[in-house]
Amino acid sequence: MSKLRVAVIGAKGRIGAEAARAVEAADDLDLVAAIDRDDRLETLTEADTQVAVDLTHPDAVMDNLEYVIGHGIHAVVGTTGWTPVRLAALEERLAAAPGIGALVAPNFSIGAVLTMRFAQQAARWFESVEVIELHHDNKPDAPSGTAGRTAQLIAAARAEHGRAPQHDPTTHGLPGARGADVDGVPVHSVRLRGLLAHQEVLFGGTGETLTIRHDSLHHSSFMPGILLAVRTVPGVPGLTYGLEHFLSEDFRPDED
Amino acid sequence: MSKLRVAVIGAKGRIGAEAARAVEAADDLDLVAAIDRDDRLETLTEADTQVAVDLTHPDAVMDNLEYVIGHGIHAVVGTTGWTPVRLAALEERLAAAPGIGALVAPNFSIGAVLTMRFAQQAARWFESVEVIELHHDNKPDAPSGTAGRTAQLIAAARAEHGRAPQHDPTTHGLPGARGADVDGVPVHSVRLRGLLAHQEVLFGGTGETLTIRHDSLHHSSFMPGILLAVRTVPGVPGLTYGLEHFLSEDFRPDED
Amino acid sequence: MSKLRVAVIGAKGRIGAEAARAVEAADDLDLVAAIDRDDRLETLTEADTQVAVDLTHPDAVMDNLEYVIGHGIHAVVGTTGWTPVRLAALEERLAAAPGIGALVAPNFSIGAVLTMRFAQQAARWFESVEVIELHHDNKPDAPSGTAGRTAQLIAAARAEHGRAPQHDPTTHGLPGARGADVDGVPVHSVRLRGLLAHQEVLFGGTGETLTIRHDSLHHSSFMPGILLAVRTVPGVPGLTYGLEHFLSEDFRPDED
Amino acid sequence: MSKLRVAVIGAKGRIGAEAARAVEAADDLDLVAAIDRDDRLETLTEADTQVAVDLTHPDAVMDNLEYVIGHGIHAVVGTTGWTPVRLAALEERLAAAPGIGALVAPNFSIGAVLTMRFAQQAARWFESVEVIELHHDNKPDAPSGTAGRTAQLIAAARAEHGRAPQHDPTTHGLPGARGADVDGVPVHSVRLRGLLAHQEVLFGGTGETLTIRHDSLHHSSFMPGILLAVRTVPGVPGLTYGLEHFLSEDFRPDED
Repeated sequence: MSKLRVAVIGAKGRIGAEAARAVEAADDLDLVAAIDRDDRLETLTEADTQVAVDLTHPDAVMDNLEYVIGHGIHAVVGTTGWTPVRLAALEERLAAAPGIGALVAPNFSIGAVLTMRFAQQAARWFESVEVIELHHDNKPDAPSGTAGRTAQLIAAARAEHGRAPQHDPTTHGLPGARGADVDGVPVHSVRLRGLLAHQEVLFGGTGETLTIRHDSLHHSSFMPGILLAVRTVPGVPGLTYGLEHFLSEDFRPDED
Repeated sequence: MSKLRVAVIGAKGRIGAEAARAVEAADDLDLVAAIDRDDRLETLTEADTQVAVDLTHPDAVMDNLEYVIGHGIHAVVGTTGWTPVRLAALEERLAAAPGIGALVAPNFSIGAVLTMRFAQQAARWFESVEVIELHHDNKPDAPSGTAGRTAQLIAAARAEHGRAPQHDPTTHGLPGARGADVDGVPVHSVRLRGLLAHQEVLFGGTGETLTIRHDSLHHSSFMPGILLAVRTVPGVPGLTYGLEHFLSEDFRPDED
Repeated sequence: MSKLRVAVIGAKGRIGAEAARAVEAADDLDLVAAIDRDDRLETLTEADTQVAVDLTHPDAVMDNLEYVIGHGIHAVVGTTGWTPVRLAALEERLAAAPGIGALVAPNFSIGAVLTMRFAQQAARWFESVEVIELHHDNKPDAPSGTAGRTAQLIAAARAEHGRAPQHDPTTHGLPGARGADVDGVPVHSVRLRGLLAHQEVLFGGTGETLTIRHDSLHHSSFMPGILLAVRTVPGVPGLTYGLEHFLSEDFRPDED
Repeated sequence: MSKLRVAVIGAKGRIGAEAARAVEAADDLDLVAAIDRDDRLETLTEADTQVAVDLTHPDAVMDNLEYVIGHGIHAVVGTTGWTPVRLAALEERLAAAPGIGALVAPNFSIGAVLTMRFAQQAARWFESVEVIELHHDNKPDAPSGTAGRTAQLIAAARAEHGRAPQHDPTTHGLPGARGADVDGVPVHSVRLRGLLAHQEVLFGGTGETLTIRHDSLHHSSFMPGILLAVRTVPGVPGLTYGLEHFLSEDFRPDED
């Protein structure tokens, strides 16, 4: 069986370099190109790339995807900075490229995806819920994309099961103490030297609490999810947002 | 619509008293008897009890259930001390009482049940898993029934998905450091003044960990689960072990 | 030896009632009065009270203390709502009552006081620090008095050892995500059904974090501190703010 | 001012390499030798080494120290495997080398040292205490050296303040559930893929708990402590065991 031909864009970045190594190490994948910002995108087509992994920068990703999709290459995108407007533009672009798939995911770690899934499942059972995300002290956005998305999923699950909005008891206090409001779910962002990427979802009901915590201690945690996406995206035309849609019963993380 | 006629056995105990109050406060339930060890079991039949909640002692529960089932009353059992032999005896007794249901549960809190469910779902995705349970300093058994059951469910889920047994790297150390072995899952029991009932399930994979933690801070956390069981058990003949089987999509905890 | 004559004001409140019982149970203390809002303050003087414990309401405490101090009675105050203006007024009042002591404390639990002490000691060693406090969903103020005070103590310790202010990397985000700013220390307030009173202080340095967490799971945690204050305040004239000043090497919590 | 002349033994190991870089980057230190197992120890004397940092293996460290001390070089030792017998041998060797100092430390991270210090300070105030240490799944010893030492320090502090031994309520259970017994303090060891080095000390008293947690997420956390030791050990002749003895009021971690 021929191997899937994979390219990494942003291969000199920390995660990009690790992704290139992970693709290279996988028996069923062939790393045919590993380019960075000084390289020509034409390298991708010259190498007959089937799937491109974009791990670059919000300023570059839209141009990269225009090229990739325009040349019939599937895309796995870990680059951040996605807004509803950008996603709509990407979806429209894909509509004009039948058969081509793109997976955009705010987080490729299995643990992060399970955290979101469990948070959705638990949401209906508890009166209260808040999210705390904790990251290293160089992170420019707050809250994190993963935390924002988790809060949205929780809010949607509460609404679906007829849960009333949470009541905030605060009558006096300092601005910001009660966090950011994401669809009615308070989200708190901690920035601390020494941390990498961590998230806690706290649920509270009568006499009990349930906490789901994800700790990402090393960027290698993204690799199993990136490889899964690379293998899956050729069979899923159009735009998919969120790795959870690829986490079917058949998925198995790479053993090491 | 007539209300379900409910009795509490062990109504002078802390949880029994709270259960009696919770039944009394529920619109669809009628507390027809609340007895303790000095009271006659005949009170149950004289009051036309439909469902009996047993919150007594391992020494008393088998006799109580013999009477209850023998008189066509459904049972919800929170009393501890269940062994495979005892469960088999109860199952046999129920086989001779067609239409009668009994729910035996090691834990009635929604949070504890969700913890076990999420632990089962997560088990296949991670290389490593251990359980830490933490309780007040009067608890005589270690590990807790809930922790033991959680570890068994995790072990079964790993086996089902072809996960290899965990490798314990310890080559020298003190006895006990690595916890109790429950079907290959290490379980650690902490006993601390000031705690009530807490459990953590820790999963570890490449570069990341996922932690599911349940904190029971007050016995009132058992009430929504007990009421759910009371309402559900008349429709489920035979023995059911574990509240999770009653946690269907239609279940809603009592709002307060 | 004669026992110290102690009164509790606010004795029908949850903590007040528990404080009255704790005073009564102590061998060296005599509960001579236990009054609430419908009772006359004159009861205190008629009972020859030496120390009054005020566990009432911000609306009542200043009048109570005016009476107490005016009649030569020492005060232990757990009532909340203290502002710099109120503290200054109390200090002035005490200056006119030589020999009379008042201890005002935002938190009487030993664990909370140790948390603050350790936070002060650790502050100089770490680049980053944030505070998360978590309380039940009826708490009207955010952040909690204890968290605010902890942040102030940390900020002072950092300044004293020449630590530069923390750099917040956030360049875009939602309002509130980064918490309340207390002297440069971010403080996050979580409100959750099922919780009582909890606080985490998170320190971060190169490659490591240190977390100090205090969980108050029952109001009984305040009693050892209240009894310590009652025994100590007659020997400390003037205003003392914070139980930590009474936590000397000789202090021993009541064993049970 | 002339710089302190420092050598690293074990400079090809992960921590050794990082230590060599840290010495090189420090303004007041001069890296004069960086050797590994295939290199001659004579390199140290040829380079006029004043302080040698040993980050090697239990099989090599005693010979290394014999050479180092015998040639009037001070030693900072992070190599593991220290037993009372080995420490006694080292102490005796140093007695024959007046003016030469050696610091042996089970842990060089500031957070770990503060955790031990706070645990000692808190020990007297709480009825219950247990230690949980969590490490990556390649660690051969359990419990960790740091956890064992922490438990010993806690036990000593309890004894000093007349605390009675902890009562274990367990009357039936599985072997190992209650952890290893270190001087009466239960210690639990968790081994999990994805973790590095973590420790929790849990204290429990009436109605409250206090938790001190240290997370080491990267080996760089040892560097500030190693540099401190290098600068301090020339002024402290004889054997010092534990970095905490060098953590005086004047110590400042390196800012980066």
